Amino acid sequence: MFHATVSVTLRSSILDPQGKAVEHGIHSLGFDAVANVRMGKLIEMDVDAATEAEARHMAEEVARKLLANPVMEDFRIVLTPTERTVPS
Amino acid sequence: MFHATVSVTLRSSILDPQGKAVEHGIHSLGFDAVANVRMGKLIEMDVDAATEAEARHMAEEVARKLLANPVMEDFRIVLTPTERTVPS
Repeated sequence: MFHATVSVTLRSSILDPQGKAVEHGIHSLGFDAVANVRMGKLIEMDVDAATEAEARHMAEEVARKLLANPVMEDFRIVLTPTERTVPS
Repeated sequence: MFHATVSVTLRSSILDPQGKAVEHGIHSLGFDAVANVRMGKLIEMDVDAATEAEARHMAEEVARKLLANPVMEDFRIVLTPTERTVPS
């Protein structure tokens, strides 16, 4: 069993009006040292797989087919084994 | 200059209907080994600060005041130095 964290981010060439709005809010709070705010999605899930390679393959398939828009977004996956991976 | 990645996640005690909907979609695609899907937000930003401690303090203030709802959400911050931090 693995815990997968999928980060979905807009490609840098794509305009991000939501990020611009948040950046405006941040500056309104007085934090002028913050710039280039970009918004993305974070999806966390448990993947029941025997090996890390199998879990990564499954998470990549899910990200490619459902979570990310391949035209506009990139994704990256971080896997961490959970306690049920290696039964003693 | 630091690049800050702020991950905002719903607390585990809070129901996540969006995550449930995504999980249903994942299962519809045939990925039955995926469970406990939770949706969060990812905010990336550049923080102009002299030290990592200063950048972290600023990012935490921004997350606490604007990006996360402290009643329902937790956040964590990952900082990475960017090339403009140490001018040669």
